[in-house]
Amino acid sequence: MKAVENLRKKIRTGGWDRQTTGQVPGYTQTNLVILPKKYAYDFLLFCMRNPKTCPLIEVTDAGSPVPKKSAPTADLRTDLPKYRIYKNGERTEEVTDIIAYWQDDFVSFLIGCSFTFEKPLLESGIPIRYIEEGRNVSMYTTNIPCESAGIFQGPMVVSMRPMKPEEAIRAVQITSRFPSVHGAPVHIGDPAQIGITDINNPDFGDAVTIHEGEVPVFWGCGVTPQAAVMASKPELMITHAPGHMFITDVREEEHAVI
Amino acid sequence: MKAVENLRKKIRTGGWDRQTTGQVPGYTQTNLVILPKKYAYDFLLFCMRNPKTCPLIEVTDAGSPVPKKSAPTADLRTDLPKYRIYKNGERTEEVTDIIAYWQDDFVSFLIGCSFTFEKPLLESGIPIRYIEEGRNVSMYTTNIPCESAGIFQGPMVVSMRPMKPEEAIRAVQITSRFPSVHGAPVHIGDPAQIGITDINNPDFGDAVTIHEGEVPVFWGCGVTPQAAVMASKPELMITHAPGHMFITDVREEEHAVI
Repeated sequence: MKAVENLRKKIRTGGWDRQTTGQVPGYTQTNLVILPKKYAYDFLLFCMRNPKTCPLIEVTDAGSPVPKKSAPTADLRTDLPKYRIYKNGERTEEVTDIIAYWQDDFVSFLIGCSFTFEKPLLESGIPIRYIEEGRNVSMYTTNIPCESAGIFQGPMVVSMRPMKPEEAIRAVQITSRFPSVHGAPVHIGDPAQIGITDINNPDFGDAVTIHEGEVPVFWGCGVTPQAAVMASKPELMITHAPGHMFITDVREEEHAVI
Repeated sequence: MKAVENLRKKIRTGGWDRQTTGQVPGYTQTNLVILPKKYAYDFLLFCMRNPKTCPLIEVTDAGSPVPKKSAPTADLRTDLPKYRIYKNGERTEEVTDIIAYWQDDFVSFLIGCSFTFEKPLLESGIPIRYIEEGRNVSMYTTNIPCESAGIFQGPMVVSMRPMKPEEAIRAVQITSRFPSVHGAPVHIGDPAQIGITDINNPDFGDAVTIHEGEVPVFWGCGVTPQAAVMASKPELMITHAPGHMFITDVREEEHAVI
């Protein structure tokens, strides 16, 4: 845990503003969404109703920047390398701390991230193409509607990893152990069945090679809640910048239910 | 599903006011907590922070008595056999419908119930003593604090089932498949370690026989959120009467994550 605290300290003091991918292996990294309290009930309900895409790791008390369960020595205003500020649904700034933006009514949502289940996939010998090819994971907007909650609604966004059918079966087993970080896939095979018209043209991230004999395997993606919030244009929202995640004190294996 | 709808119709029209235990086997039964909207955020956060004791199956839109995901043809005002009304933390009435009490700002919380994991335990040959002895399950207030949320706080309440050590191991495996209905046990063995001073004197329900060579196995219990709410004395709360549960359209096996 020393390594986690050291990296957070380095980030806090301006010594690290790069992506956190691959840093401090074994510890859970999360997405961050910060909203004023008046939006918090609807967003909490949206996450509760859509656990495959919006798995909540922690929700802070209003006004507190401390995630007391997953990282009691951390400060969410300074401990991520890069943040994005959105006003009325438009991105206005990218900053390395949010001290100047902090409000007493801010509620912070830490949302599970698929990094957590990729490690056990790799350890089982399942290749992860976007890592092999040095790209970002391929993400697609589907025709599967999320369950709406108050002002928040939108389609499910999924991430895709191509693999052989026998690897897909093993990947179902492995990721089912982690319901709090997206869990089992939501779809395997024909992209058209979930409204994806061109698998080589993802809506977010990069395209990756799909080899002969491989099937695309789709998981719920943490971009879903961010997209739903942006579409509803709240006065103010703060998120992490892509890949610049929050690193918790919680070991990834602690999220396994079995 | 016809059988579920038929029983709900019978309850709605006054033809059934008894316990639902053992009725329409295979379908999920839930606890019910109804609160005015002003308490809903704190209670939703309390449940999210304490998933072992307060596993949420569904939360309705404010003012709607229809659980549109788990039973779209049901009406929560009439479809439970018996309800309890609490004013300022005191029980004032027990009624068979809540039409007269309904408010436009009511939010209904359906909370998972251990009935759902008892069926697979029984099917694996694990005896459930309170059923064998025709009693209620033994429940105890522990010294394990729940994570608080806003006005809600309190100790974890657990249910206990005695069994042989090898059955306890199997029970861990079986109930781990069902994180949305309490999941794996929270404790096995010495009751004193979780603050229970007399195992033969439960705080709720009945004592059951613990045979020579058996260990007590403890699970998070749905009484926990009710106790936390009662302790904070909200103006108004409505719950199911013990054993008089809400029956959903969702098959119990659908809650298994693997």
